[in-house]
Amino acid sequence: MMNKIDEEVAKLLQLKAQLAEDEPHKFVLKTAKGTRDHMPAQMALREKVFSTIISCFKRHGGEAIDTPVFELKDTLTGKYGEDSKLIYDLADQGGEILSLRYDLTVPFARFLAMNKISNIKRYQIGKVYRRDNPAMTRGRYREFYQCVNHREILNGMFEFCGVPADSFKTICSAVDKLDKLPWEDVRKEMVSEKGLAEEVADNINKFVIKKGGSELVTALLSDDLATNAAAKRGLEEMRLFFEYCDLYGITNKVSFDLSLARGLDYYTGIIFEAVLTDDGQPGETVGSVAAGGRYDNLVGMFDAKGRAVPCVGISVGVERIFTLLEARALAEQAKLRTNETEVFVASAQKQLVRERMKICSELWDHGLKVEHSYKQNPKLLAQLQYCEERSIPLAIIIGESELQKGVVKLRKVATREEFEVPRDKLTTEIRNYLKNMSSQQERA
Amino acid sequence: MMNKIDEEVAKLLQLKAQLAEDEPHKFVLKTAKGTRDHMPAQMALREKVFSTIISCFKRHGGEAIDTPVFELKDTLTGKYGEDSKLIYDLADQGGEILSLRYDLTVPFARFLAMNKISNIKRYQIGKVYRRDNPAMTRGRYREFYQCVNHREILNGMFEFCGVPADSFKTICSAVDKLDKLPWEDVRKEMVSEKGLAEEVADNINKFVIKKGGSELVTALLSDDLATNAAAKRGLEEMRLFFEYCDLYGITNKVSFDLSLARGLDYYTGIIFEAVLTDDGQPGETVGSVAAGGRYDNLVGMFDAKGRAVPCVGISVGVERIFTLLEARALAEQAKLRTNETEVFVASAQKQLVRERMKICSELWDHGLKVEHSYKQNPKLLAQLQYCEERSIPLAIIIGESELQKGVVKLRKVATREEFEVPRDKLTTEIRNYLKNMSSQQERA
Repeated sequence: MMNKIDEEVAKLLQLKAQLAEDEPHKFVLKTAKGTRDHMPAQMALREKVFSTIISCFKRHGGEAIDTPVFELKDTLTGKYGEDSKLIYDLADQGGEILSLRYDLTVPFARFLAMNKISNIKRYQIGKVYRRDNPAMTRGRYREFYQCVNHREILNGMFEFCGVPADSFKTICSAVDKLDKLPWEDVRKEMVSEKGLAEEVADNINKFVIKKGGSELVTALLSDDLATNAAAKRGLEEMRLFFEYCDLYGITNKVSFDLSLARGLDYYTGIIFEAVLTDDGQPGETVGSVAAGGRYDNLVGMFDAKGRAVPCVGISVGVERIFTLLEARALAEQAKLRTNETEVFVASAQKQLVRERMKICSELWDHGLKVEHSYKQNPKLLAQLQYCEERSIPLAIIIGESELQKGVVKLRKVATREEFEVPRDKLTTEIRNYLKNMSSQQERA
Repeated sequence: MMNKIDEEVAKLLQLKAQLAEDEPHKFVLKTAKGTRDHMPAQMALREKVFSTIISCFKRHGGEAIDTPVFELKDTLTGKYGEDSKLIYDLADQGGEILSLRYDLTVPFARFLAMNKISNIKRYQIGKVYRRDNPAMTRGRYREFYQCVNHREILNGMFEFCGVPADSFKTICSAVDKLDKLPWEDVRKEMVSEKGLAEEVADNINKFVIKKGGSELVTALLSDDLATNAAAKRGLEEMRLFFEYCDLYGITNKVSFDLSLARGLDYYTGIIFEAVLTDDGQPGETVGSVAAGGRYDNLVGMFDAKGRAVPCVGISVGVERIFTLLEARALAEQAKLRTNETEVFVASAQKQLVRERMKICSELWDHGLKVEHSYKQNPKLLAQLQYCEERSIPLAIIIGESELQKGVVKLRKVATREEFEVPRDKLTTEIRNYLKNMSSQQERA
């Protein structure tokens, strides 16, 4: 039966392809929806951001791993709740059924279970794929802070408020929307769409409006809510968490927020978001740039015997950080170098391409970063403009008379000063100039 | 008609899905065929390889760009000749029709045309996706060399030998297999499968067995082959190429090989492969680790007015390089550090987790790379073993008596020497030890 269907599908698709070939074809020059190219200036910025993030991971003993960009579809199934519809599937081309990864967490759990690893402090940098329409908020943001909540507190709170056990996840998804929608809309979703009793929704409202610090944890531990076992466990862990924040000196960066829910199914304990606040207005949040939490049962879902490996992790939304930094760089008209070339070898006359190549070859062999024009007979002005546009610090200018005297002209591109340098001391002189220029920059 | 087909396909696929749901489902824990996870040790090696490659690109003025991992399917269509069947398509989920990129070259050409760039020295690092069965050769290789040929010479040679013009590409694909198959097999493909006359195939054989240096270029320029205009153009460019190789001092690394063809359709001029030769046996090649060539017409295919942007490029097969280096590291039992932790903060007694956290926090604030155990009361031996396994150079050991005296113990992990250090001089002392240890390593 299944094979018969496959045959019929194949026949129809072939027929469709034939028909398509007969139709006039219009080619559109674009990237796929929701994706973009990155220019050298953007890549230079990314390189800086990544190196900042990686140095933070390394400062805490992190190790890198990598997993493939696609996974068996089965691996991703049943892990993302309502977000599963956003997964990109690969076409069935007669092999395994595959999907692009939706995040790095589920593949990481698969990695742990498959490689029988129960102890690792890993970081991973990679693209993930979601079929949604990302709306990018732009702006200038200076301050970070972390929102924190705990899944056990949420579950306990739902139970305490009278939410039926089998509705916890779907009500949790609704609460998760409170950062974008007013309570009235979320309440409507709970009551009209998800069938929650009105008074239960109102009970929930009394809690999700609360936010604060360790004093809120203390208050809730004395509240009736703490009669619920799950809520009590969550609140006790929260108390310990705030104690650790004090030891690390970061308590003032943390807000305990009972409306924080995180949409994904797999979280089991503490959950958090890092939020950028608008410059000067610490109350106004403008978007989450990192988020994560504890997921103690996900690895067990991949283990034949269900052995659990407790995990906690954070995901940094680098795309959003790039967007914000690009907007800021644009506003400040900051110029970031996109190349690292130290010396440009220019010729003042025609027929010197071979001389340029010889000098380049010598300097490359000494480890210097060097370019020359790929044209046979470029104009001197065009060569010097190239250096200025790219902020290349030094230019060598060669001409017949210099070559005969056994010297070359060395030019500081920024100041346009020129010096004669003996050909056989070229490398040493260049190194000295570069060293002086970089120490001057440091002093400036 | 097309819509009718789509409806029927949808109905059948739905039926198939229903049938599938009824069947018992077995979950398999694996990565997709042809993909693999990378462990921290492998990632540390990759980081080294990438930084070597990137430093080479930067030494020559390269700038980084990035393009999305998938493209409109149309963008890839008609660019890869017989290899097009290896492209991964994404499922049609009701949006654009997309495919995973097959290489970085075609997306780069799309990037140039779309962003109207005609001048860039770019490098790009990214994964590409091909539905084939890669067979990895393993071994220890020390020497590199470049094989070179020219598409115009190949085309001229085909014309000169009597290959019909519309068979150039398919015969070129056959010649491309000469590095893996004996001439007899390739001849059979040309004659039986591709309908080439036997004597034409034999004419081709006289050329494709030739390889050499600039002297072969000179010889062919005096050969009857040079009466063919395309071949002559190609040979003249080859002569210039060898002149440039002399200037760069790399002629001895280059072999002009008339059997080198490169399967892809888009090359128009010089083509080349970097081949690793078996250690000590420079004649035996064991596989290509980089390849590329000139493709002057590819960007024009994306431009509405067909404006050409001449390009030349090389692609480094980093996966193969990793495989070879991993095999070597395994054979040499080399140990690569997978973390950069400088100091581990250990406790000698129970109930010191808060003291450990305070010290870590202080050292992190000073930019040091520091770890401590996440356990409440870890055993001292387990903590010191962790340091030794991970080659962490320094350990701090704290105990009640030291804390009362205002000191900590600093231990050199490799030699197991221990010193008492005043608590308030800790950071300075650690920096001194690290500096001395790294300068000792450099001297060793």
